[in-house]
Amino acid sequence: MAEKETEINDLGEFGLIDRLTKDFPIKNEETKLGIGDDAAVLTFGEKDVVVTTDLLLEGIHFDLRYVPLEHLGYKSAIVNFSDIYAMNATPRQITVSLGVSSRFTVEHLDRLYSGIRRACEIYGVDLVGGDTSASVTGLVISITCIGDVEKGQEVRRSGAKPTDIICVSGDLGAAFMGLQLLERENSVAAGQKDFQPDFSGKEYILERQLKPEARRDVVAMLREKGIKPTSMIDVSDGLSSELLHICKESNVGCRVYEDKIPIDYQTALMAEEFNMNLVTAAMNGGEDYELLFTVPLSEHEKVEKLEGIKMIGYVTAPDLGAALVARDGSEIPIRAQGWNAFNSGN
Amino acid sequence: MAEKETEINDLGEFGLIDRLTKDFPIKNEETKLGIGDDAAVLTFGEKDVVVTTDLLLEGIHFDLRYVPLEHLGYKSAIVNFSDIYAMNATPRQITVSLGVSSRFTVEHLDRLYSGIRRACEIYGVDLVGGDTSASVTGLVISITCIGDVEKGQEVRRSGAKPTDIICVSGDLGAAFMGLQLLERENSVAAGQKDFQPDFSGKEYILERQLKPEARRDVVAMLREKGIKPTSMIDVSDGLSSELLHICKESNVGCRVYEDKIPIDYQTALMAEEFNMNLVTAAMNGGEDYELLFTVPLSEHEKVEKLEGIKMIGYVTAPDLGAALVARDGSEIPIRAQGWNAFNSGN
Repeated sequence: MAEKETEINDLGEFGLIDRLTKDFPIKNEETKLGIGDDAAVLTFGEKDVVVTTDLLLEGIHFDLRYVPLEHLGYKSAIVNFSDIYAMNATPRQITVSLGVSSRFTVEHLDRLYSGIRRACEIYGVDLVGGDTSASVTGLVISITCIGDVEKGQEVRRSGAKPTDIICVSGDLGAAFMGLQLLERENSVAAGQKDFQPDFSGKEYILERQLKPEARRDVVAMLREKGIKPTSMIDVSDGLSSELLHICKESNVGCRVYEDKIPIDYQTALMAEEFNMNLVTAAMNGGEDYELLFTVPLSEHEKVEKLEGIKMIGYVTAPDLGAALVARDGSEIPIRAQGWNAFNSGN
Repeated sequence: MAEKETEINDLGEFGLIDRLTKDFPIKNEETKLGIGDDAAVLTFGEKDVVVTTDLLLEGIHFDLRYVPLEHLGYKSAIVNFSDIYAMNATPRQITVSLGVSSRFTVEHLDRLYSGIRRACEIYGVDLVGGDTSASVTGLVISITCIGDVEKGQEVRRSGAKPTDIICVSGDLGAAFMGLQLLERENSVAAGQKDFQPDFSGKEYILERQLKPEARRDVVAMLREKGIKPTSMIDVSDGLSSELLHICKESNVGCRVYEDKIPIDYQTALMAEEFNMNLVTAAMNGGEDYELLFTVPLSEHEKVEKLEGIKMIGYVTAPDLGAALVARDGSEIPIRAQGWNAFNSGN
C-alpha cells in the first residue's frame, strides 16, 4: 500500500459511497431517484422489467495478480448487461454492492468504480444503489442489473422448436485461452523481479478475457432486420452448458457442427501452443459473452446475410438429445463441462 | 460436518439452485418469469418500481456461532423488505446470491433458504433469481429486493419540512442489547462443554436481534388513516444516523426529546445489567428496523391516536442543526455513531 493512499476508514461508509458514486450522472428517464435513499425509484410505463444478478468473489471469479481493477469493474458490469441483452431487453440500471478487506484503499476502489463508470457510460446504464461494507478477506462484488423490454418482446430460453436454426455471434474460446495465457505468465513471473511477459500477437484473446463486451449490437441488428429469436442465452459458462440450458428449458434436442463453431485465429494458435483441444476450449471455455440463439428455419436467408453471426446447427426433437457432430460425421453427446464455481473453488 | 450431510459438489451449481429454489411458488401477478433464465421478467403496469440491495458477510454482519441459519435467512430478507416499506412501497420480488465456502453442506443452505422462504411467504414476496458460487472463506449473502408503489406515492428521505412532527414506530435499542447478550453468552460459553445460557425474561431482545420484522403494518396503518409521511427511513444503522440522513436529504434540522424515545422494559434492564447508557443504545444501536418518519404538524391529532407510534420531536430550520434534548432541557448535538461496517470490520 503506497504511503499517500487513503484508508477506507478515513472516509467512513457514507463518505466512501459519496466519493465512489458522485460521477455517475443519471442518463435514463426511467430512473426517477438514484442513490441516497432506502431504495431507488424507477418508472417503466407499460414496459416489462427484467432483473439479473451476479456475484463475483476474489479467489474464485478473479485473481487480482493479473486483473487490473478498472477491467474488473468494467467486466463486472458487462456480465450483467449481457444477461439483460440475452432477454432481448435493454439494461437501464445497476446496483453495486462491495465487500472490501482492509488491504484495499480508497484509490483501489476508485479504479474499480472507474471501470464500472466506463461500462455504464458506454451502455447508457444508471448506477442507482448499492451497499458497501468491510469484508474479512478479499473483495466481494455483487451487481444487480435492471432492464426493460416491450411487453411480449422478451426472448426466453424456452422457445426453441425442432427445425429451428442455432446461431451464435462472434467467436468462442478466446476468453478461455486468454485466461490460460494470463495464468501461465503469472506463474512464470512468480518470484522473478521485473519480469515482462510478451503479449504481442495475443492482444485479442487477452482483451476477450479482461475486457469483454456485451452484444448490444447483435440485439439491435436482429431487431432492425425484423428477426425475433425463438430462444436466446448469453455464453457465460460455455457453449455446451448454454446449449443444454436451451434444450432443457425448451424441451428439445440439438445438433451442432464442430466445423461451424466460430474460432478466432489467435485462439487456435494459443490452443496449439498449450497443446489443448481447440473444440473443447470453444465448447466449454466460457466467458465469451456472445449470444446463442435460435431462429425459425424460415429465417434462414435473412440470418445467412447477418455479419458476425454463424449458423452452427439445428434444433431437434427432445429424444434425439444434444450432440456435437464431429468433422468425420460421428456424434458426440454434449455434456455440461462449463465453468463451475464449485469445482474450481475447492 | 455430520456423515450424512450432502456436499455441495455432489449437486453442482445448477443442481443446488434447483434444490434450493424449488419450494418458492410465484405469488405475485407482477412476476411473469422467475428463476431459470438469463433474467427474471416482471410487469408493473403504471406503477413505479423500487429497488434496494444489501450485502451480508460472515464475520462482519453475522456470527454463525450464535445465529441459527434459518434466522439468518429470514433476517437477510427482512432487512431488504424494510427498505422497500420505508419508501411507502410493497416488496414483490427478491434475488438471492450466495457465496459459500467448503465447510457448508447442502443441508446448511436448506436451513438458510427455509428462513428466506418463510419471510417470502409471510410478506408475499417472490424469489426470482440469484447466483450461487463457491467462496474462499465464509458465507456471503447478497439480496436485492424489488417493489412497487403507485406513481407519486413514494416517500423519500428528502421531504421533511420545518415544524413537521418526527415519529418512530415500536421501540428502539432492543436488537442492540440482544446482540450484547448473545456476544456475552457466547464468550462465556467458549470452551465450556454443554454450557446452557439462561435467556428467560430476555426473549424479546433476542427476538429483536435474531428475527426482526419489517413494519408492513405501520405502512398499511398510515395509508388506512390517510396519513402520508413527508419523509421516511427505516432504522437500520441507529436513530442518530437515520435522523441525520433525513436532515441532510431534506436540508432541515431537528430536535428529538430523550424522554420520548420508546424503549422496552427488557432493553432497559439489559442496559443496566451491562452498565451501558440506555439512550446511547437506543440512539446508536441500530438493527431495529422500525420506521422513522415525519408528518405535517396538522396531522398531530391523527398521529397521536395511532397505536405503536411515538412522536419524538420536530423538524427545524437547517441552521439549528440536529440535537437531542436531554431530560434537563440541555441540547446535545446528534452525531452519527451508528453501526459502521468499516470500523467493526477491522
